[in-house]
Amino acid sequence: MHHIISIKDFGREEIDSLLDKAEEIRNKGIYKRTLEGKIAAMLFFEPSTRTRMSFTSALNRLGGVAITVDSVEGSSISKGETLSDTIRVVSSYVDVIILRHPKEGAARMASEFSSVPVINAGDGAGQHPSQTLLDLYTIRENMPLDGIDVGLLGDLRYGRTAHSLACALTNYDAVLHTIAPPGLEMPDSLMNDLREKGLEIIEHENLESAVKELDVLYATRIQRERFPDSASFSSIANSYRITPEILEGVRDSLILMHPLPRAGEIDPAVDSLPYAKYFRQAENGIPVRMAMLEETIL
Amino acid sequence: MHHIISIKDFGREEIDSLLDKAEEIRNKGIYKRTLEGKIAAMLFFEPSTRTRMSFTSALNRLGGVAITVDSVEGSSISKGETLSDTIRVVSSYVDVIILRHPKEGAARMASEFSSVPVINAGDGAGQHPSQTLLDLYTIRENMPLDGIDVGLLGDLRYGRTAHSLACALTNYDAVLHTIAPPGLEMPDSLMNDLREKGLEIIEHENLESAVKELDVLYATRIQRERFPDSASFSSIANSYRITPEILEGVRDSLILMHPLPRAGEIDPAVDSLPYAKYFRQAENGIPVRMAMLEETIL
Amino acid sequence: MHHIISIKDFGREEIDSLLDKAEEIRNKGIYKRTLEGKIAAMLFFEPSTRTRMSFTSALNRLGGVAITVDSVEGSSISKGETLSDTIRVVSSYVDVIILRHPKEGAARMASEFSSVPVINAGDGAGQHPSQTLLDLYTIRENMPLDGIDVGLLGDLRYGRTAHSLACALTNYDAVLHTIAPPGLEMPDSLMNDLREKGLEIIEHENLESAVKELDVLYATRIQRERFPDSASFSSIANSYRITPEILEGVRDSLILMHPLPRAGEIDPAVDSLPYAKYFRQAENGIPVRMAMLEETIL
Repeated sequence: MHHIISIKDFGREEIDSLLDKAEEIRNKGIYKRTLEGKIAAMLFFEPSTRTRMSFTSALNRLGGVAITVDSVEGSSISKGETLSDTIRVVSSYVDVIILRHPKEGAARMASEFSSVPVINAGDGAGQHPSQTLLDLYTIRENMPLDGIDVGLLGDLRYGRTAHSLACALTNYDAVLHTIAPPGLEMPDSLMNDLREKGLEIIEHENLESAVKELDVLYATRIQRERFPDSASFSSIANSYRITPEILEGVRDSLILMHPLPRAGEIDPAVDSLPYAKYFRQAENGIPVRMAMLEETIL
Repeated sequence: MHHIISIKDFGREEIDSLLDKAEEIRNKGIYKRTLEGKIAAMLFFEPSTRTRMSFTSALNRLGGVAITVDSVEGSSISKGETLSDTIRVVSSYVDVIILRHPKEGAARMASEFSSVPVINAGDGAGQHPSQTLLDLYTIRENMPLDGIDVGLLGDLRYGRTAHSLACALTNYDAVLHTIAPPGLEMPDSLMNDLREKGLEIIEHENLESAVKELDVLYATRIQRERFPDSASFSSIANSYRITPEILEGVRDSLILMHPLPRAGEIDPAVDSLPYAKYFRQAENGIPVRMAMLEETIL
Repeated sequence: MHHIISIKDFGREEIDSLLDKAEEIRNKGIYKRTLEGKIAAMLFFEPSTRTRMSFTSALNRLGGVAITVDSVEGSSISKGETLSDTIRVVSSYVDVIILRHPKEGAARMASEFSSVPVINAGDGAGQHPSQTLLDLYTIRENMPLDGIDVGLLGDLRYGRTAHSLACALTNYDAVLHTIAPPGLEMPDSLMNDLREKGLEIIEHENLESAVKELDVLYATRIQRERFPDSASFSSIANSYRITPEILEGVRDSLILMHPLPRAGEIDPAVDSLPYAKYFRQAENGIPVRMAMLEETIL
């Protein structure tokens, strides 16, 4: 049985093949109802409307239907019940489980008790492989995945999507640039792992100079909670904010990405510039998740 | 692209054509799955179970599916995100957005950022066009829309459905009768607008005498919150309550309507009288919304 | 019109025929989309994720779709509205209503106002017929329903599923064994009813000795709230807990059942023993509910 738990389980060939499949699905334009009669349980122990909508839409496009259990509140399913019991029961109702859970490792554990494939839709500080796959798809739509400079901007200490993307890039001949506020730098242990796998990493302190060396600038949210007070947050947030001014003199090839929702990280004035690809990136979630669903269910 | 934002955007011809379409759909009895493969986002930033169920059922009857985002609580979609960003992302997932929002003007704004049609399912004190269309459909099922006396009863100061219906009636040769408790009369500005558009308006202080002059009596909810105390609410509510007694001597043609849910505005003893059309009115939401969905999506 | 309100409305022949239908559906393996185009309202005035998921999955397997109204919070449907009004409106939107309600008798009342079939998915301390039917199906999968010893373990005072199963067993030549902590014994009135209908009942004080006389041991949850303090709960809960040790020397034919979720009533070490049928029991909810849906809608 084919689960999708972590991007680390994917080699380069598997990633490429899944992205090829997604592109093929998109290019067909009219979708075959390959998943008609198939049912997914959207087990969201933590709210994530966007990810849930995107998976549901991808499933519906292929003729399948979703049964949603949204967050734990109002849900009896977890009342004093172990996750393993929940998974054993739910997996006897459906053809695939899409799981979002606050605890790291929950998806892997679920896959051990499930009688149907499990797709990890985010587990705590852990993995969120569908996000990483759609990120790679978006880059590949614009340039080859080899020989590029990819910058990660924002909270690189806690940012799950940034960590996963960095891991995935070890499969390609890319250079990683990190641009993080003091205290939110990428953890040393992860940096060491990435370097061991052959990824070149360049650390920057300053967005303005870094941005001119990049083909991809991937911004993530900086959360107010990480800072002692509002003032220090504002000053940091401002100096890591993408504006039309900061983009003067960048490479023509540059694309701007963001997992969304954004708060203040990208000035809306940037939306109309040719670099802006974050809405296209969200849209790319559909064909990528269609490919993931076909891959696991069929 | 065809959005449905306000009943004010509809001329007589467009209303008639949409109601004709609804009637045709109903008469077919067995529905064609014209919307198979189509997906709607039910973006409900304010709860409205009845409207959501009715739109969803209409969509399902035609083979389409709905993805629901119910109220803001428990939803990450609006966390610090602008409505325009939400709409841009969600519209890349689906074929139509059905939007309910607490702020007047939200639907119009959404339509400017959406890549798919937007249907307004109620925005604050603003518009709720599907309700008005099903109200008109219900009248037309029973009598021509021209040459009739239509009474609006209850809270005419804040009542959105009453305002919208009054606006729509300016397209027809109808006489409007208003019957409102003191302090809840229809706003002067609206009265002036309606009269400028040629609608004759007769104001009544008393339900008992007014009801005998009517072909349609449209009751709306009087909310307890509008009154200083329980006693003054009760006395008002009682004198604007529809009972079998008050209906003695009315025209044979009279029909009673209510957008539902009702509190005490209509005595349940009235339900079995031939005048009562409010449950049929709710039922009419299905063919009318089917027509709206086909109109916007196809 | 065919409603399903209480297991007490079913005679032996009707039960057998419904279980036969369920088995036939399961054996077909690939399901016909007999309910394509059919819509169910899942009106859950009380949360019950598991029952809702199971009914929804059963419906989806046959091509139908569900519209969910989950719990009353966040739902406008019941705001000051009588259940009869809600049912009248909702039944004009859909083809069947699956109702969960905290008040005993709600489902019967709903069936009187609905224009479509109503299926009771649990009403307070009242009935939950789909649970009982899947319980019977599970027993019948393993042994004939006649000539067997069925033990009910746990809270037999308040446990709705235990009461319903006992009622259903009066249709068969079974012996009922009750094993309940002091204070949680089956109510005398129910015992009298069952005996009047010809059911033999043997009361046990002790799980260890009782278990050896059984073909079926049906455990239910003992709720902490029933006890004055944590210590007395723990000591009771422990002595009514099913463990591998307690199962030494039981009949080969013994099957263990539980409506789930379980708290501590069954030691997870029991899961791998051949007696354990509770996950299979949950799975059986799908074909049984498919049969119920076909029976009522078609």
